Amino acid sequence: RSASRRTIATTHDQVAVLKANLDNQTGESLGYAAKRLFEAGALDVFLTPIQMKKGRPGQLLTVIASANQVTKFTQLILKNTATKGVRYQIVKRTIMQRKEIVLPTDYGDVHLKIAQFNGMVKATPEYDDVAHFAMQSGETFDYIQTRLQALIDTKIS
Amino acid sequence: RSASRRTIATTHDQVAVLKANLDNQTGESLGYAAKRLFEAGALDVFLTPIQMKKGRPGQLLTVIASANQVTKFTQLILKNTATKGVRYQIVKRTIMQRKEIVLPTDYGDVHLKIAQFNGMVKATPEYDDVAHFAMQSGETFDYIQTRLQALIDTKIS
Amino acid sequence: RSASRRTIATTHDQVAVLKANLDNQTGESLGYAAKRLFEAGALDVFLTPIQMKKGRPGQLLTVIASANQVTKFTQLILKNTATKGVRYQIVKRTIMQRKEIVLPTDYGDVHLKIAQFNGMVKATPEYDDVAHFAMQSGETFDYIQTRLQALIDTKIS
Amino acid sequence: RSASRRTIATTHDQVAVLKANLDNQTGESLGYAAKRLFEAGALDVFLTPIQMKKGRPGQLLTVIASANQVTKFTQLILKNTATKGVRYQIVKRTIMQRKEIVLPTDYGDVHLKIAQFNGMVKATPEYDDVAHFAMQSGETFDYIQTRLQALIDTKIS
Amino acid sequence: RSASRRTIATTHDQVAVLKANLDNQTGESLGYAAKRLFEAGALDVFLTPIQMKKGRPGQLLTVIASANQVTKFTQLILKNTATKGVRYQIVKRTIMQRKEIVLPTDYGDVHLKIAQFNGMVKATPEYDDVAHFAMQSGETFDYIQTRLQALIDTKIS
Amino acid sequence: RSASRRTIATTHDQVAVLKANLDNQTGESLGYAAKRLFEAGALDVFLTPIQMKKGRPGQLLTVIASANQVTKFTQLILKNTATKGVRYQIVKRTIMQRKEIVLPTDYGDVHLKIAQFNGMVKATPEYDDVAHFAMQSGETFDYIQTRLQALIDTKIS
Ligand code: NI
Ligand code: NI
Ligand code: NI
Ligand code: NI
Ligand code: NI
Ligand code: NI
Ligand code: NI
Ligand code: NI
Ligand code: NI
Ligand code: NI
Ligand code: NI
Ligand code: NI
Repeated sequence: RSASRRTIATTHDQVAVLKANLDNQTGESLGYAAKRLFEAGALDVFLTPIQMKKGRPGQLLTVIASANQVTKFTQLILKNTATKGVRYQIVKRTIMQRKEIVLPTDYGDVHLKIAQFNGMVKATPEYDDVAHFAMQSGETFDYIQTRLQALIDTKIS
Repeated sequence: RSASRRTIATTHDQVAVLKANLDNQTGESLGYAAKRLFEAGALDVFLTPIQMKKGRPGQLLTVIASANQVTKFTQLILKNTATKGVRYQIVKRTIMQRKEIVLPTDYGDVHLKIAQFNGMVKATPEYDDVAHFAMQSGETFDYIQTRLQALIDTKIS
Repeated sequence: RSASRRTIATTHDQVAVLKANLDNQTGESLGYAAKRLFEAGALDVFLTPIQMKKGRPGQLLTVIASANQVTKFTQLILKNTATKGVRYQIVKRTIMQRKEIVLPTDYGDVHLKIAQFNGMVKATPEYDDVAHFAMQSGETFDYIQTRLQALIDTKIS
Repeated sequence: RSASRRTIATTHDQVAVLKANLDNQTGESLGYAAKRLFEAGALDVFLTPIQMKKGRPGQLLTVIASANQVTKFTQLILKNTATKGVRYQIVKRTIMQRKEIVLPTDYGDVHLKIAQFNGMVKATPEYDDVAHFAMQSGETFDYIQTRLQALIDTKIS
Repeated sequence: RSASRRTIATTHDQVAVLKANLDNQTGESLGYAAKRLFEAGALDVFLTPIQMKKGRPGQLLTVIASANQVTKFTQLILKNTATKGVRYQIVKRTIMQRKEIVLPTDYGDVHLKIAQFNGMVKATPEYDDVAHFAMQSGETFDYIQTRLQALIDTKIS
Repeated sequence: RSASRRTIATTHDQVAVLKANLDNQTGESLGYAAKRLFEAGALDVFLTPIQMKKGRPGQLLTVIASANQVTKFTQLILKNTATKGVRYQIVKRTIMQRKEIVLPTDYGDVHLKIAQFNGMVKATPEYDDVAHFAMQSGETFDYIQTRLQALIDTKIS
């Protein structure tokens, strides 16, 4: 059967967290900047709405990156956003070790992201597969996800 | 088998939507006000963070209520919040007709909220049952919900 | 004694609510636009953070204005913001009738905003007076506000 | 020269605004639903973070659609989201009349969205063109946009 | 008189701040997770709305815990949420030393949280007492809180 | 010609980041607190809407300050807000070196903030100048900013 599993260990590592406050950049421009940061290998990029001085709505940009890429991402943030300063820190992270396997189902092959930590196992179908099957079958995203997840929960434990 | 079903029809009705902007009330006090509004029979009460003049963070309080209860909820909002004015409208609503049934499962009896519209059926387990089974079994909320939902999807269609 | 009171009646009126979604305007520019709208006589102007298409953070601008000033404020919004369309509605409002009185206190004269609805009376000190007394006395804003409010609650009822 | 212009008149029309509160759907699933709604011809789809009962963070989904498509979008929302009810209204809208023209520039042809209202003209370069030129030239999105906008402002007035 | 006071000193300590980004968990499930984290002894748990990739609204979960409980809360977060990684840091904190006293009032006994730092004293009535007296008396939460706070300000200084 | 330029080097420094969660303070009072913190020399002060326990909307206050002013700002936060604890960290920052120059334009003298990092130069007109010229000329903020920015981009490079 196709659902191979290997024993995986807990991982502790470190990541860089870079932050910049933005009040003079449009939403369009910020969407573009986020895309560039992802393309450059950022582990995560997200925006939080904040309220700044003088009645200005702003956005706090947060970039999570490899701990050894602070210089690269500082430069990319300074280039692609309107900020003139980037705050950063190295923070610790407990990250479940991951692997991907492929599980055949009635809908077709599903890529599973499997993660394990201290005997706890999480296996979830990839977004793209769920979206694809939902489009194909005319069912909803949530219906497909539930069916796949229930199937996965019985196979992986 | 216990999962009885009746044919249910689409419903169109009207609800009152009441709104007030709040900048001089604490979060503690707003939590209290929301609780009082729910107790008084509001269909829904929710808060949206907004940015008001002079650098003040505020909250937009929205109350959904029966279309014939504008006066009652206006009075409750004026009493329990710091606002001095309440905007309101009657808006149309398409609401799936609902019923509750009880479905026996391995975890115990589950109350299902069933809703139907134009041949579409949604059946979801009640929050309290999912939470209860999660506590009892030591499994997560999401694990229990997926299992129950998958079971429901095969029984109700 | 100085705290004069007149009988005041409940008021029902109508206001215009104008809305526009903005994704290509900076926070600085939006702060400027909000200031211009207040100067032009808007009853209220506020911003709500929203999430728009293509990963863009945006702001929903809401302007509350007199019911007969839709044209004026539509034009001001189209001029001062990047939107190309303004949605608007006339909604009903229950508004407590207001008057201002001056109350002498140990800190100095305080302007009170008094509002009444169905026998309910709300009287609150003006922001500017509270801020002024806090600066002058070295006490906090909340300390001054509580003292003034407690004094008002005993005088006005 | 390529920048043709036609006289364009102010338009007043009506749109449907449909809303649903969501507390039991994931962000992944909501992203999928928004995509489906755009594909089906929604004029706009956006999400506002709200705070619902029992300590639950939720999202308010708003869909702007043609006034005669309430039924279609009600059905799509009920199908693709976890809500069991959709509130809707027909609201008025003042919409600048739009046309698109192509303007040759040093970077290449730029598609301009031109909008006019009461003698006011707005002309902005399309996002895709700005993004494309930014990628090609190695300049930032904001640098390209400013250059194009300044060029447009001198040509179109 | 009943309001006993002891001299209390400034405290500096350290706390763990744990964070996880969540885009594939429902609001219902997050409300449940927050409740479990509080029950397990978290000092604080709060959610911030964020905008993630691919048009997905998400939540940033932040848990404040004792500095020596990183392992315990990492495990609880990994179990009760959909994340596969938890970032954490030990941060410094200046915390006013606290004690609780009981103050008899006309409404009944009130529990006061008293905090002191560098000669500054803050004393506030407990939420539950204010809410209880408001329900009992038919007055608003804010009215009761102001009266109690003003009373406290004259007794404690 | 007036636009003098000096060679400027990249700077790395450290700043203090202080945070406090607030659920029992009004928006009015928070606006006042933010103003006091800016007056005291905070580098930045911003508010993020968060969702706290028991259905309470709250605000996360963040203050960025000089690394050697933790004690001063801790005291100011404890005094001007309702919190009883302040978390703080020293974080690293990459900050573009800045200078201000004055550039004569058709609208009048414009103050430019110039920043440089690794050969990258950013020059932006001051908010107050843009706002002033917009008011004076009757043009929009965005129109003036684009014209000034385009002029600056050709002079400074
Ligand atoms: Ni700025
Ligand atoms: Ni594959
Ligand atoms: Ni106010
Ligand atoms: Ni029952
Ligand atoms: Ni756009
Ligand atoms: Ni006066
Ligand atoms: Ni629910
Ligand atoms: Ni073309
Ligand atoms: Ni995901
Ligand atoms: Ni007790
Ligand atoms: Ni509290
Ligand atoms: Ni000067």
